[in-house]
Amino acid sequence: MKKLINNPQHVVDEMIEGYVKAYPEYIKQRNENKRSLVTSRQTPDNKVGVLIGGGSGHEPAFMGYIGDGFADGVAVGNIFASPPPDPILETTKAIDKGTGVIYLYGNYAGDIMNFDMAAELADLEEDIRVETVLVTDDVASVAKGGEDQRRGIAGGFFVFKAAGAAAAKGLPLSEVVRIAKKANSHTRTMGVALSPCSLPQTGEPSFELGESEMEIGLGIHGEPGVERGKVQTANDVADRLLKDILHDMPLEQGERVAVLVNGLGSTSRMELYLMFRRIEQQLNQKQITIHRSYVGDYITSLEMGGCSLTLMKLDDELADIVDYPADCPMFVQK
Amino acid sequence: MKKLINNPQHVVDEMIEGYVKAYPEYIKQRNENKRSLVTSRQTPDNKVGVLIGGGSGHEPAFMGYIGDGFADGVAVGNIFASPPPDPILETTKAIDKGTGVIYLYGNYAGDIMNFDMAAELADLEEDIRVETVLVTDDVASVAKGGEDQRRGIAGGFFVFKAAGAAAAKGLPLSEVVRIAKKANSHTRTMGVALSPCSLPQTGEPSFELGESEMEIGLGIHGEPGVERGKVQTANDVADRLLKDILHDMPLEQGERVAVLVNGLGSTSRMELYLMFRRIEQQLNQKQITIHRSYVGDYITSLEMGGCSLTLMKLDDELADIVDYPADCPMFVQK
Repeated sequence: MKKLINNPQHVVDEMIEGYVKAYPEYIKQRNENKRSLVTSRQTPDNKVGVLIGGGSGHEPAFMGYIGDGFADGVAVGNIFASPPPDPILETTKAIDKGTGVIYLYGNYAGDIMNFDMAAELADLEEDIRVETVLVTDDVASVAKGGEDQRRGIAGGFFVFKAAGAAAAKGLPLSEVVRIAKKANSHTRTMGVALSPCSLPQTGEPSFELGESEMEIGLGIHGEPGVERGKVQTANDVADRLLKDILHDMPLEQGERVAVLVNGLGSTSRMELYLMFRRIEQQLNQKQITIHRSYVGDYITSLEMGGCSLTLMKLDDELADIVDYPADCPMFVQK
Repeated sequence: MKKLINNPQHVVDEMIEGYVKAYPEYIKQRNENKRSLVTSRQTPDNKVGVLIGGGSGHEPAFMGYIGDGFADGVAVGNIFASPPPDPILETTKAIDKGTGVIYLYGNYAGDIMNFDMAAELADLEEDIRVETVLVTDDVASVAKGGEDQRRGIAGGFFVFKAAGAAAAKGLPLSEVVRIAKKANSHTRTMGVALSPCSLPQTGEPSFELGESEMEIGLGIHGEPGVERGKVQTANDVADRLLKDILHDMPLEQGERVAVLVNGLGSTSRMELYLMFRRIEQQLNQKQITIHRSYVGDYITSLEMGGCSLTLMKLDDELADIVDYPADCPMFVQK
């Protein structure tokens, strides 16, 4: 598959270089570790540090979400691979203000191993208190595995935002952790893939799908989904994603949600709006209120085709958190 | 090509429906004409109305740019087709405050015919003063045609922003027009396509490119470009786009620019940052200062693969205009 790249071995470092040059008013690269990115702004004393991260290839996640009201730092891994402990530790040191750091990332074995190791080193070497909240919003992975197999996908956006807002409000680490966990437990995502992406190193598609096929529940790194079939209409696909989410996280008449229709990389905005249109109709009919909507590419898989639907069930506290302003290179909310 | 749509004949209307439902705090649809979208906010008395538009399929353009500091209204056409006079006229009536309306759109014959007709009707029926500024940033179309053949592509973002900022500042129509024309004359774009999009009605690719081919200068509706060849590295492609722009609009050491690296729809953010990285290196070497950078999908062609580079040469007035804040569903700048 064709790509605008140079040496495939250098794509991640070159991407970071371009990114940092594009947004110097938001972000800086640590001299100590080039895969450690932190806010270039002065943040308040005693603010809890918010560290997010994971593999590359999900842009604008994760580095697009460094900024006011969101993350203070990001540790960057290779494409679809966890960052090693070093950049995580370096980022932790850079953003800790003595009040501790929260780690937020998707529930994947490689990430857990590396982030846990960094947390341990941060404690041992620098006496920094680290707490971890895993993102586990993916409905499909539970259908295949069980609760502890629940992966983190696009719903991470809401969980990161919740922690970022809570920390920006000046809450202590225990409260930031509580709110992030609550946001995560109130968030569910179900996706559909229409076409694969390809890794720059191999140029090979990450999976194979027939010319008129789609796959429900396929993971953001190409993990197998729950059902493969002919591409259906936007309405039918939207209904299916919503049904699976509501089966896993029932919502009653009168409840409020935040909605994210997330493009996986190469799906046109037009299609995303068609998906949102149907979701809005269905929620409206069920008398569930949409408090705020996000439609666009928030957590992608390179140029994968398809999209996901995320709902976060809101109470007053989470509604307030969703409304909290943010100012990042890839996401500004007033 | 696979798409998440319903009836292909209804994609544009369904997209608008979804869009308006997603952002009611920004945008509303006119009851009188469903292809006429206007800001749902109160704008200041005497403010000049800013109307942008063109065919669908370029999302987030044009309707993503309705908001404070940007456009007041958008007339929406079918995919890659000019809107007819009706929605343009309806939008004009809705946003005129007695101080006139500026029309901004790309230099395409169909758009000119329809927008001119609407302007005439606005004058005859409602005595509304309309001025038009055509966007003509595309370097490639001049190479093939001549100055009056210069099409409008991604640089429209800067021209729309300039007019939107000037109008938001409370300047009179003549000044808004002057600044928009200046922005346009200071803006150049050169693009590269790697893969086609397909129209929902036909499902057929908009053009054919070999598996390892790219085309320089291909238009956003698939208009033929200036050169076809093997896909080159990001650095070589960036150098080529920059060279063509600087040939058309020379820049001297010490000058300032705004840079837009725009994805055409299915190109990963990673690739866009690689492109930006090289552009920044080259401009830096030429001692040209980047005043502000934009990297992402700003004016797309459905799921076309590839990107474009836009430079706007800045003086103090245009730098101020670029920095002016904006608050739209698809673009927020603080």
